[in-house]
Amino acid sequence: MLAVTILGNNSALPAYDRHPTSQLVTLDDHLFLVDCGEGTQVQLSKYRIRWGRINHIFISHLHGDHYFGLPGFINSMGLLHRENDLHLFAPAPLQEILNLQLKAAATVLPYALHFHPLEGEGVLVKTDRFKVTSFATKHRIPCWGFRFDQVKAPRRVNPEKAIQHGVPSSFYDRLKQGEDYETKTGELIKNELVTDAAPKPQSYAYSADTLYDEELIEKVQGVDMLYHETTYLKDLNDRAASRFHSTTTQAACIAKKANVGRLLIGHFSSKYDKLDVFRDEACEVFPNTDLALEGVTYKV
Amino acid sequence: MLAVTILGNNSALPAYDRHPTSQLVTLDDHLFLVDCGEGTQVQLSKYRIRWGRINHIFISHLHGDHYFGLPGFINSMGLLHRENDLHLFAPAPLQEILNLQLKAAATVLPYALHFHPLEGEGVLVKTDRFKVTSFATKHRIPCWGFRFDQVKAPRRVNPEKAIQHGVPSSFYDRLKQGEDYETKTGELIKNELVTDAAPKPQSYAYSADTLYDEELIEKVQGVDMLYHETTYLKDLNDRAASRFHSTTTQAACIAKKANVGRLLIGHFSSKYDKLDVFRDEACEVFPNTDLALEGVTYKV
Repeated sequence: MLAVTILGNNSALPAYDRHPTSQLVTLDDHLFLVDCGEGTQVQLSKYRIRWGRINHIFISHLHGDHYFGLPGFINSMGLLHRENDLHLFAPAPLQEILNLQLKAAATVLPYALHFHPLEGEGVLVKTDRFKVTSFATKHRIPCWGFRFDQVKAPRRVNPEKAIQHGVPSSFYDRLKQGEDYETKTGELIKNELVTDAAPKPQSYAYSADTLYDEELIEKVQGVDMLYHETTYLKDLNDRAASRFHSTTTQAACIAKKANVGRLLIGHFSSKYDKLDVFRDEACEVFPNTDLALEGVTYKV
Repeated sequence: MLAVTILGNNSALPAYDRHPTSQLVTLDDHLFLVDCGEGTQVQLSKYRIRWGRINHIFISHLHGDHYFGLPGFINSMGLLHRENDLHLFAPAPLQEILNLQLKAAATVLPYALHFHPLEGEGVLVKTDRFKVTSFATKHRIPCWGFRFDQVKAPRRVNPEKAIQHGVPSSFYDRLKQGEDYETKTGELIKNELVTDAAPKPQSYAYSADTLYDEELIEKVQGVDMLYHETTYLKDLNDRAASRFHSTTTQAACIAKKANVGRLLIGHFSSKYDKLDVFRDEACEVFPNTDLALEGVTYKV
C-alpha cells in the first residue's frame, strides 16, 4: 500500500485556512513525513495521524514554508515521551539551526535524532520492501525531491497448488526465487504453476518546489503518482520562472512527458482563493490530475 | 488605552484548539507582540489584527512554545512587503538562530530587523507616553517578563477657564507643567483652577513562565492588570515546582500580595480540556481573575 495524505497545500503565506507544505507518505506500515511547514503538528493531530509511527522525515529545502513546523514537531515528540530513533533527511544547514534551538531551550530529547544531510542524489533509505531516493530540483536555493519505490516482491507460493503438485515446503524459498521443481519421478513443475505473481510495485515522486525543468522527466519517469507544485495558474509563466516555481500547464507537461499514472498538484499561491481552475488547467494537458487537498489521502 | 488580546493561551503541546503562547498588547496606537508561539501569524490573521502596525516584539524565553512562530512571522512580513523597521527584544541566542535561518533561505528582508538582546532588567522602550521594562522571572532557562507603563500625562489646560481667568495662551505650556499664573494686577491664578488632571496612567505586567516567586511581587506591584501563568491546577504544586511553572493558587497569591487591579491567567497545560476550574481556584484567593481566552481583548 502506498498513499499520500496532504497536511498542507499552500505556498509561503498561510491563507484561506490552507497551510504551508507538508504531507504524509504511507508505505505499507511505514509513515514518512515529507516537509513540515508551520502548524504541521496541529494538522497531524487534526487528522488523527499517529505521530509516534513516523520514523523518517524528509525536508526538501530550507524555505520556511517547508520546515518552520519541524522544531515544534521534534520538541512535541519529546514532550510526548517518544523513545524510538527519528531519522531526519534535510539540507545540511538545518542541523546547526536545530542544535542551537535545542541548546537555547536546554532541551535533551528523550529519543535519538539522526541527522542525515542531503548531498547529491541517491538512496536515502532502503529495505527489502522499498527504497527512498532523492533527486535535485531547480529552485532558488538547493532543493531535493523524493521518490518512494516499492521493491518488486518475490512470487508468492500457492500452498494448495504446491501440495497438489507434490512440492515439499522445504522448497518454498526456492520457489519464491522463481525456480522450477523437479519431482522424484523427474517431472518438471514449472514455477508459474505453483506460485502467484506479487502485486506490481508502486511508486510515488514528490518533486518539491521547482521551476519547469525537463531534466525532471527522467527522474520521475513512469511513477504511478507524481506530486508537482503549481504555485501559479498558466497566465503567470513569467512570475513562476522568476520565482523558481511552476504553473499548472508546466506541471501537467512534466507529468505527460514522464508518462506518470496520476498527477497531484499543490503549493498554491496565497493569491488564489478558489482552486478549481488549477485542476481545470492541468487537466487540459494531463487529464488524470487531482488537487492536493488538505486532509485527503490519495492512494497510488 | 491599554489592552491585551490573547492569541495563544496554551503551554507547550497544542491541544483542544488552544495555541502556544502569544499575545498582543495595544497601548494607544501602538501594537506590541509578546511571545510568538507556532501559529501566531495564523492567529493574527484570524482575529484580523493589522500585522503591519506591530513594530516591537518581545520574546520572554527560548522554549519553543514562546517563539517557534517567530521565524514564520518575520518571513511573512517580508513577503507582505513590510518596509518599517521592526524591533525584536529577545534572549541573545535567538539572533544567531534567526541569522542562520535567513541565510539558509537566502532571504533578504525588505525591512530592517533590529535585534535587542535581553540582559538584566531595565527599560527597553521609552517615549513621552509610555515605557516598556523587562524583569527576570524564575524559569528553567533565562526568562523575562515585560511591564508596560503609561507615563503620567501632564495636566490638561481647560481653555474656557483659562480665558475666563485671563491666562494668555503663551502661558499654557507652563500651566501643563503645573505652574500658577500671576496676572498683571498681581492676582495669583492657582493651576488647579484652569487645568484638569490627565487620566490616571495604566499599567500591565506579563510575567511569562515562572515558578512561584515572591520576588515577583515587587516587580509587578500595583499594576492595573497582571498576566500570570497557571500551567497547573492547585493540586499539582509539586509538578509545577519541578517544571518551574505555577498553579492557580500561586498566581492568585502573587496578584493579591502585589495588590494588582486584575489578574489574567493562562499557559494552561494540555492535560486540561476544561478551563473553568482554573478561574474558580484562582478566584478563591483573588476574585478579580479572568481566564486568558484566545481572541478575547482584555482592557485594562
